Amino acid sequence: MISKSHITVRYAETDQMGITHHSVYPVWYEVARTDFIKQVGMHYSEVEKAGVMMPLVSLDVKYMGYTKYEDELTVEVSITKLTAARMEFEYKVYRNGGDKPVNIGHTAHAWTNREMRVINLKKTHPEIYAIMEKAMQSV
Amino acid sequence: MISKSHITVRYAETDQMGITHHSVYPVWYEVARTDFIKQVGMHYSEVEKAGVMMPLVSLDVKYMGYTKYEDELTVEVSITKLTAARMEFEYKVYRNGGDKPVNIGHTAHAWTNREMRVINLKKTHPEIYAIMEKAMQSV
Amino acid sequence: MISKSHITVRYAETDQMGITHHSVYPVWYEVARTDFIKQVGMHYSEVEKAGVMMPLVSLDVKYMGYTKYEDELTVEVSITKLTAARMEFEYKVYRNGGDKPVNIGHTAHAWTNREMRVINLKKTHPEIYAIMEKAMQSV
Amino acid sequence: MISKSHITVRYAETDQMGITHHSVYPVWYEVARTDFIKQVGMHYSEVEKAGVMMPLVSLDVKYMGYTKYEDELTVEVSITKLTAARMEFEYKVYRNGGDKPVNIGHTAHAWTNREMRVINLKKTHPEIYAIMEKAMQSV
Repeated sequence: MISKSHITVRYAETDQMGITHHSVYPVWYEVARTDFIKQVGMHYSEVEKAGVMMPLVSLDVKYMGYTKYEDELTVEVSITKLTAARMEFEYKVYRNGGDKPVNIGHTAHAWTNREMRVINLKKTHPEIYAIMEKAMQSV
Repeated sequence: MISKSHITVRYAETDQMGITHHSVYPVWYEVARTDFIKQVGMHYSEVEKAGVMMPLVSLDVKYMGYTKYEDELTVEVSITKLTAARMEFEYKVYRNGGDKPVNIGHTAHAWTNREMRVINLKKTHPEIYAIMEKAMQSV
Repeated sequence: MISKSHITVRYAETDQMGITHHSVYPVWYEVARTDFIKQVGMHYSEVEKAGVMMPLVSLDVKYMGYTKYEDELTVEVSITKLTAARMEFEYKVYRNGGDKPVNIGHTAHAWTNREMRVINLKKTHPEIYAIMEKAMQSV
Repeated sequence: MISKSHITVRYAETDQMGITHHSVYPVWYEVARTDFIKQVGMHYSEVEKAGVMMPLVSLDVKYMGYTKYEDELTVEVSITKLTAARMEFEYKVYRNGGDKPVNIGHTAHAWTNREMRVINLKKTHPEIYAIMEKAMQSV
């Protein structure tokens, strides 16, 4: 499954170079992740209430282009890997109407409990694991 | 008591106007508040661990001037009001070497428990109240 | 005219108190301001390209309630004052479905040129002034 | 050369997981980069005034641990690569007193002019190139 999120660049997200500050893209990835999880039938706030956290283990971002204030963008997100211990996402940011992404990123997340200890999601919360597995496989 | 905090403007804090984004000043006020509380002999993280929260009730900011990337600033903070239910702070931001503040602000905070219910701090945590009272009065 | 903007609270906008950080509301006000100006037939990025800046002169925020991750909100914005030298806006933030605002704010802006010198907008850019005047008066 | 920058985690930098939000580390890297460049005898704001920009081309971050509000950290930064077209940095974030980094990152930057066109720094600004080269080689 690929989920699409719509973003309009905020003034506060620009820097004195006149473009979106590079630290903002991971924030948009997170917005896209929230939408993705909502679309597979959960709310990430409920996942956390169930005691499951998804702290980042790694992040990478490629900046092929830049974006500007008021630009209208689409962030596409998909799951690229799922195990009992972690999950990985890929993000592609497009300027609306553009056919090449201006930005591509990846995040890897550990499944942990509230105390940031790694859990085996398949055992502790098989229903969440099943939903994510389905989301990864469906087209 | 007046506490002084030193801030250097970060690149990420600028916007496309080429100056510090206006939403950053409340973040600096908070840095100054943290330093202030540390200086009176506590850590705000310990205050929260004791179950006492200080959510904002109101904020006001006057922007008399602007600041830029790499500017070195001093934020002065003092308590202007303390009751069993709330506390108020005043902030003055100076460019180092300048004698007029470029920015002045105020925040008012409620004393609450973790569930955001207002508490009577004087009764529930008299030791924290006493420390704040002393900080307000000492020169 | 009152313009309405829709906001979903981002994870990055929360703090360790578990609620939206208080410095985020001015960022939402700015999103609402951008939408407002777009709705009256301009783009704020074009206003800036015309050499007109609107730096903040003052900001105030009242926090009557708090908001949380994934909360869906509406920000209402209107112009409360317009002169040749400055403009003021009022913002009301509602949780969707709620009838009382959880947050109310005001910003005052100076009309300046790129060098942050105050201009007389009515004389230098009467067409922008006229659009804002119409936006203030229309219901 | 390795430059060391001191950071205290701000309240606004935490999220509802109770730790520093992952998008904050690139902001600290930038603070460290600013200090690094200052230490080699320039100011990054002057580099930009000379018409030289250093937009990010890529970013990667490994989160081996987490950090919390009021944690005192040191960010070590060094140049790992320098060519006429780009420059790369490595960052290591340590909790003060700790001997293993809690976070490691890398950024790659293009040398561009104000219009974001890639330049050959060695030809257009040999003096800046020389300073960076010296900073990379000196221990």
